[in-house]
Amino acid sequence: MTLKIDLNSDMGEGFGVWSIGDDVDRDIMPLISSANIAAGFHAGDPSTMIETLRLASRHGVCVGVHPGFRDLVGFGRRHISAPADELVNDALYQLGALRELANLEGLKMHHFKLHGALFMHAARDQEFAEKLTSALAIVAPDLPIYCLANSAIDHAAKKVDLRRVHEFYADRDYDDEGNIVFVRKVKQLNPELVAQKVLRACQNKEVEAVSGKIVTVKFDSICIHSDTPGSLSLIRTVRAALDNAGIEVAAP
Amino acid sequence: MTLKIDLNSDMGEGFGVWSIGDDVDRDIMPLISSANIAAGFHAGDPSTMIETLRLASRHGVCVGVHPGFRDLVGFGRRHISAPADELVNDALYQLGALRELANLEGLKMHHFKLHGALFMHAARDQEFAEKLTSALAIVAPDLPIYCLANSAIDHAAKKVDLRRVHEFYADRDYDDEGNIVFVRKVKQLNPELVAQKVLRACQNKEVEAVSGKIVTVKFDSICIHSDTPGSLSLIRTVRAALDNAGIEVAAP
Amino acid sequence: MTLKIDLNSDMGEGFGVWSIGDDVDRDIMPLISSANIAAGFHAGDPSTMIETLRLASRHGVCVGVHPGFRDLVGFGRRHISAPADELVNDALYQLGALRELANLEGLKMHHFKLHGALFMHAARDQEFAEKLTSALAIVAPDLPIYCLANSAIDHAAKKVDLRRVHEFYADRDYDDEGNIVFVRKVKQLNPELVAQKVLRACQNKEVEAVSGKIVTVKFDSICIHSDTPGSLSLIRTVRAALDNAGIEVAAP
Amino acid sequence: MTLKIDLNSDMGEGFGVWSIGDDVDRDIMPLISSANIAAGFHAGDPSTMIETLRLASRHGVCVGVHPGFRDLVGFGRRHISAPADELVNDALYQLGALRELANLEGLKMHHFKLHGALFMHAARDQEFAEKLTSALAIVAPDLPIYCLANSAIDHAAKKVDLRRVHEFYADRDYDDEGNIVFVRKVKQLNPELVAQKVLRACQNKEVEAVSGKIVTVKFDSICIHSDTPGSLSLIRTVRAALDNAGIEVAAP
Repeated sequence: MTLKIDLNSDMGEGFGVWSIGDDVDRDIMPLISSANIAAGFHAGDPSTMIETLRLASRHGVCVGVHPGFRDLVGFGRRHISAPADELVNDALYQLGALRELANLEGLKMHHFKLHGALFMHAARDQEFAEKLTSALAIVAPDLPIYCLANSAIDHAAKKVDLRRVHEFYADRDYDDEGNIVFVRKVKQLNPELVAQKVLRACQNKEVEAVSGKIVTVKFDSICIHSDTPGSLSLIRTVRAALDNAGIEVAAP
Repeated sequence: MTLKIDLNSDMGEGFGVWSIGDDVDRDIMPLISSANIAAGFHAGDPSTMIETLRLASRHGVCVGVHPGFRDLVGFGRRHISAPADELVNDALYQLGALRELANLEGLKMHHFKLHGALFMHAARDQEFAEKLTSALAIVAPDLPIYCLANSAIDHAAKKVDLRRVHEFYADRDYDDEGNIVFVRKVKQLNPELVAQKVLRACQNKEVEAVSGKIVTVKFDSICIHSDTPGSLSLIRTVRAALDNAGIEVAAP
Repeated sequence: MTLKIDLNSDMGEGFGVWSIGDDVDRDIMPLISSANIAAGFHAGDPSTMIETLRLASRHGVCVGVHPGFRDLVGFGRRHISAPADELVNDALYQLGALRELANLEGLKMHHFKLHGALFMHAARDQEFAEKLTSALAIVAPDLPIYCLANSAIDHAAKKVDLRRVHEFYADRDYDDEGNIVFVRKVKQLNPELVAQKVLRACQNKEVEAVSGKIVTVKFDSICIHSDTPGSLSLIRTVRAALDNAGIEVAAP
Repeated sequence: MTLKIDLNSDMGEGFGVWSIGDDVDRDIMPLISSANIAAGFHAGDPSTMIETLRLASRHGVCVGVHPGFRDLVGFGRRHISAPADELVNDALYQLGALRELANLEGLKMHHFKLHGALFMHAARDQEFAEKLTSALAIVAPDLPIYCLANSAIDHAAKKVDLRRVHEFYADRDYDDEGNIVFVRKVKQLNPELVAQKVLRACQNKEVEAVSGKIVTVKFDSICIHSDTPGSLSLIRTVRAALDNAGIEVAAP
């Protein structure tokens, strides 16, 4: 019996001529199984979206939409106080926009994952989480939601029978309750240590919290953020470790 | 046998708190049979789009997408020089975004009509017209294109077997070739004269050009722009004249 | 001896073709003594700014800059979490932009007043208030800050010897501590009652709080928001009441 | 007697988290004598502007404003059809915004240079050139205009007694009339050949046109675009060649 795990990363996080640091999409795409594609509000103009879809398609990577706050300058990392209904409309707008471009390329949308501060908002705010998942249950009942286990959106998605894909965050620290420790700026990480952490999580379902405590984790997908410093090297090392351990990388 | 004609107007041309002059959507919607809904690039944020879709739905009005140039400040009336591929991607992005929100409201997209300077660009630029209609033939083979008869996009749409809906522009002047005379700023028009012009066009298939010459016109839809000064009064008078003449107003 | 008071309102809150409800700037400008002009981030493109400056100039109204959050769709009413330094840079950018256009029109900048959610942020957040006023003390030591008495920005401005102009909010309710009661949506107000409230505040330095308690108020300027429903009628009635009572309306 | 020449490049062409390819500002700034700083419409948010001003200041580089079309996604390289007055207001808005931030940093604005498609528009369109220089003559009579000799803006600036700084474009080809040959995409250039071309232009006032003809050139500043592929290497090699030839690099 083979262990199988999804490996996801954010792709297409450019805008027009711009990229974040080195543009690593071309190198990362062959190493992952599912891509979260920015759809215009925090990153990703239509032409960048099309190119990212084509790149994913060439490497057989499953594509999901990655909606964020309307905040180009802040890259969707700044929380914007707004009524839940407005944010739901914003998210669906982005979903539809990417879905149409995927349609043009003959690709099917595979999943839904929020970005940055909007991801965190859905993890914490019950009203937004419930309104969003209710809307998704209508327009996209087949799309699994990538999320943090036990977050508000996880519970809300369950209520309306949406599939959830729980994530393990390879480039984040964990606390004693199995929640990730959010930091403003992720520091450079040691790829070998990250790979060991990922293997242990996959094989033993456990992670060492910052306190040293061993915490149980359950997940269907490993997330490595493409804007974490040194992301390409992290993903390469993690992927090689998974391959060597005979763990198959495949979308859920 | 009853004469039947479509009456279309641009709706949802607000953005956040903003509207153009008086917000006349609520008054115009009950009078028309098809609405061209702005989709975010020149006007129309997601929440305004949803509200406009609901308003159309309440009045049984067919909804189409109205993509424009990415130009909020210029309301899509300024031409932006850009590669055809980019503009096609922009248009499909807007189509998908509106389609998703329509989906949420249980509405089906009825047609496709470009806005402002992008409408004019497709009427004149063969490369853009052909690339756009080729893309639409893939993602929306069932959506008729509202356009000027004999324009570049009209010919391009025909080539790929997309249905076209030709328009009669009630609030524009015509030249001797049956083309509309474009002006920077449309002046206040006399509603009674416009209604007479529309009736003559519907019943006799003719319009008096600015030179005085009588020109033959063929069309499936009457367009009255909601941002023409006094648009509400124009549409009311035209609609009453059509009703009185026993001409049924209905989407094609 | 004549009583003298400033009457300020937000002007130029359009963007391109758009306005908020009826565009009342033309009617309100002759009635006020100082105008807070939007400068591009929540409203106000450069050409609208120039037109608003010219309108103010024709009526001898003093012009101030009205910087807001970068949030066109939300009209600067949504709080955006951002580092204080970034928000200071944003505010100075807007100040300079308006100052240059005023310079072109031969006008001198008269004051500084934040808009919407950024106004509230400066009233509450000491770090932002202090960094902003420190920067203003360098680039605009002569510009008074319009603010709520005893707010964070009021104290911060005092520390760096910036002049403050305290406001009385004619279209807002007060609590027992003399703070305004913020509401999401301001309801239609009775102009006569508002005018009486303003006169009492000017003549007796007191306002009746929502509890019925009489609270002392000290202020240099009356603010009536131009986006309060019925603002034109409110300002007309208040201005007439001030004129009748022999209270001179003039910028500080 | 020492030959003296200015060396200018575009700086601060990022937006929020984004940069164009590698962010080379930190490496290029020490090598140039004047920097054209993006001011928010095609690139450059307020915080990036401040950082770029500080970087220039640390290296004693003179700072100029680099206004462009309102076109983030197209990086100001797309022409937007707009009335001359609007574009003048847009340019002044950007000038003022940067000037205020420079003021905060204790820096004086040194020059004015348009960006991309707006630079080309001013080189060709007499109405825009004249309205812009008339406005600049009022608000910034001391700022020299960086421009192409004999272009529309060059003539217009002369008429209103604004100083002009003529440029030699090290990374562009010349035609027989001494005009630059504009191309959509600049190809990778050989730094040694570019350095030889620059030296010949500085020492002999001549350039070899694409036809092979030797053309006379007169200029006060060498421009190397920071977004030309390999710009850092080009600027390094050109600067070394100038240093070796005993030509002093200094702002005019």
